[in-house]
Amino acid sequence: MESFTPRLVRTGGAPLYRQLYAYIVREITAGTLAAGERLPSKRRLAADLQVSVSTVETAYQMLAAEGYVQARARSGFTVCRIERLAAPERPVPALPAEAPDPHGRWRYDFATGSVDTALFPFKTWARLQRETLTAHPELLNHGPRQGDMALRAAIAKHLHAYRGVVCAPEQVVVGAGIEYLVGLLARLFSESMFAVENPGYARTARVLQNNGVRTVFVPVDEHGMQVDALAQSGAQLAYVTPSHQFPTGATMPVARRTALLRWAREAPERYVIEDDYDSEFRYDTRPIPSLQGLDGAGRVIYVSTFSKSVAPSMRIGYMVLPVPLLQRYREEYSLYSSTVSRFEQQILCRFLEEGHFARHLNRLRGAYRARRDALLEALYEAFGRNGVTVRGSHTGLHLLATLPGGKTEAQLMQAAAECGVHVNGLSSYYMEHPETCPPATVVLGFSELDEADLRAAVALLKTAWR
Amino acid sequence: MESFTPRLVRTGGAPLYRQLYAYIVREITAGTLAAGERLPSKRRLAADLQVSVSTVETAYQMLAAEGYVQARARSGFTVCRIERLAAPERPVPALPAEAPDPHGRWRYDFATGSVDTALFPFKTWARLQRETLTAHPELLNHGPRQGDMALRAAIAKHLHAYRGVVCAPEQVVVGAGIEYLVGLLARLFSESMFAVENPGYARTARVLQNNGVRTVFVPVDEHGMQVDALAQSGAQLAYVTPSHQFPTGATMPVARRTALLRWAREAPERYVIEDDYDSEFRYDTRPIPSLQGLDGAGRVIYVSTFSKSVAPSMRIGYMVLPVPLLQRYREEYSLYSSTVSRFEQQILCRFLEEGHFARHLNRLRGAYRARRDALLEALYEAFGRNGVTVRGSHTGLHLLATLPGGKTEAQLMQAAAECGVHVNGLSSYYMEHPETCPPATVVLGFSELDEADLRAAVALLKTAWR
Repeated sequence: MESFTPRLVRTGGAPLYRQLYAYIVREITAGTLAAGERLPSKRRLAADLQVSVSTVETAYQMLAAEGYVQARARSGFTVCRIERLAAPERPVPALPAEAPDPHGRWRYDFATGSVDTALFPFKTWARLQRETLTAHPELLNHGPRQGDMALRAAIAKHLHAYRGVVCAPEQVVVGAGIEYLVGLLARLFSESMFAVENPGYARTARVLQNNGVRTVFVPVDEHGMQVDALAQSGAQLAYVTPSHQFPTGATMPVARRTALLRWAREAPERYVIEDDYDSEFRYDTRPIPSLQGLDGAGRVIYVSTFSKSVAPSMRIGYMVLPVPLLQRYREEYSLYSSTVSRFEQQILCRFLEEGHFARHLNRLRGAYRARRDALLEALYEAFGRNGVTVRGSHTGLHLLATLPGGKTEAQLMQAAAECGVHVNGLSSYYMEHPETCPPATVVLGFSELDEADLRAAVALLKTAWR
Repeated sequence: MESFTPRLVRTGGAPLYRQLYAYIVREITAGTLAAGERLPSKRRLAADLQVSVSTVETAYQMLAAEGYVQARARSGFTVCRIERLAAPERPVPALPAEAPDPHGRWRYDFATGSVDTALFPFKTWARLQRETLTAHPELLNHGPRQGDMALRAAIAKHLHAYRGVVCAPEQVVVGAGIEYLVGLLARLFSESMFAVENPGYARTARVLQNNGVRTVFVPVDEHGMQVDALAQSGAQLAYVTPSHQFPTGATMPVARRTALLRWAREAPERYVIEDDYDSEFRYDTRPIPSLQGLDGAGRVIYVSTFSKSVAPSMRIGYMVLPVPLLQRYREEYSLYSSTVSRFEQQILCRFLEEGHFARHLNRLRGAYRARRDALLEALYEAFGRNGVTVRGSHTGLHLLATLPGGKTEAQLMQAAAECGVHVNGLSSYYMEHPETCPPATVVLGFSELDEADLRAAVALLKTAWR
């Protein structure tokens, strides 16, 4: 090839070397420039195109770096053999639309899972954030895969004082949310079957199934997961929410807890996974100590999160592994990195260590108790003591309300929706046997709505459900 | 039971209600208080113990809440039936020690994977952090599971400008590191076989295997993964690092890229996973455009991270899914939450949008180029142009050095270690066929050491390897 005749845009276009590069790439991929052909010498081409030699040089170097041409000693650059890619056979389909943000669709939303952002300790958090970033540049590099030791020690101390959990910091694994941690557990027990609560939290079953393990649904009664049914299910692991069963609100009494631990001890490789859901928010008595603290035989895996107690968007969960599992966990995951930002780990660590967390929890508990009280009062006022039955209100951020007035669950939801109020029916949490669901029962989350909102929302429900 | 005789510590002990509660729990679990027995009346016990009625009331409420006793109308509290848990049969084993922090063990560490924290843009980051926390309380609640749309749009724009990636923000999935994202991909292709590079990054293979998919190692030559061997392997997915193969440093030329894309098109459900490792740091020419940009048929899944370009501890990775996979991804993971803190997402988003990232990358590239130059100069000065062969130094934060002086790889590592210098041998990155590894070759990462350190470390190596 003696020379090229690209049309170069001299003003306002891309840099000249890029235009020249792009021109030659097109010539090669179109086959006009065949494999083995020599590119014109740099000086010659520069003179022909009236550009500088370094412009040609840069374009040629790019082509060589990408493998379109190769430099040969004393013979300049020659074109490489590149097979042409035909046009794709099938056109790429259109982009599927993304699910819209559910926020703002309702006047009042009795959803579970959100928190009132006004209760967040902005000032303290901002100070800790500022101090951490400047004081600890070493936190920019990778930390221990189970999480920073100082945070794990602060978590172990908190768990001991508030939840009766007995563990060393070495047993704590910090991760980006409970879903992530449950995924890790699934792989530790990939040959086992996991029992999950029915009704329950659909996500847990889905995460386990996505991670390739078998799941079986075990029915829940007013004391939580039924241990007789669990024993018959053939499962080796039982995933339970004993502090405040989701969604029924049941607190597992000590007799059931003991029966569950006894089940776990009856065979090797049986474990209870205690998801300590909503345990921070117990209003009428002291919190119930954890199942893990009753255990003593290394058969309970404790999992929890700061989602409700700090912020859902913070993505810091943790689990406490029994010592017999720790070695296996470390071997399986020896190459993994932590999934949580070390800055946020360190901020949370100081938040715990300096007592802010305990104070914040007290404040949250007071605020949410006032909301629960307002909701209960409004419900009884609107429907009468005999017109509504409430369950699961001692603990947590939601309760169950049964309306025996003759409307079905679907009718209750529909009528509420027509008034701009979102409530979930209890049956939607049944993964199987929805026919066993108590009738006319809705799940009312009260974490996102303040007292005035709750009263206004119940007034709308009164109209809707009359 | 007429009354109790607990020993109550009146000063300096736990609150009286807790002592009373703990005493009764012990009596019940020891069997001294049998199922069905009635607790003494509150007034009677309070008088006997000379404590207030509310102290007894609180203890009884705790017992009732936990299910040790139950309240019966007009007959006070009776003890529940609770089966005793025997002492565990086998004692819980001792806590295994945690792996020590590798930092600080060496005078000079040619590790790959760390960064120099002094290069972090502390001032800008602190400002964005401060502004984000106070201005956006809504970021405390859950965001979109693929990541916040503003961040995904900023990533898509950056990728288009700097990497030639063609995508819409809807195709971007943000997650807590590449390992996490690869785990999600594994579940999307749970029946498929994944080809991974040999030598390569052991962690990728391990994450895939942990997620239950089959892997096969495919050899790498000076152009990257060998497509002939890939075609014979039976794999449906090929995980490659075309910008700067880890660890060989090879940049995949366009002919190999085309062959790889052609392989993917030859059968349905074949994909190339492009891990754009180290692409930010190309020193001698412009960056090589991504494989994804060459594709056009929706057969490339692009994955990358801000680990090297912002900070390893920040845990923000992302992938770009081809449109045909997007729908499947959304169905499979419809219940999942994002694994990345929304505050850090938002800070990173502004860092990108406001041009800080592009400036920061330029600064990093300059700093790391100076280090690479210093390392090359020191190596050539110490060992002579014929005494060391360097590969993979055009891009990235590590290079390969072969020392043909007669020492084996193990001897080179050992001699360096005796001088306090840590270098990895190339053979440690071979997952199979280590006998095909070039002899006497070490991997030198230069991101953690500045120019003076690099010169000093090479001086030690000169003594060690003479």
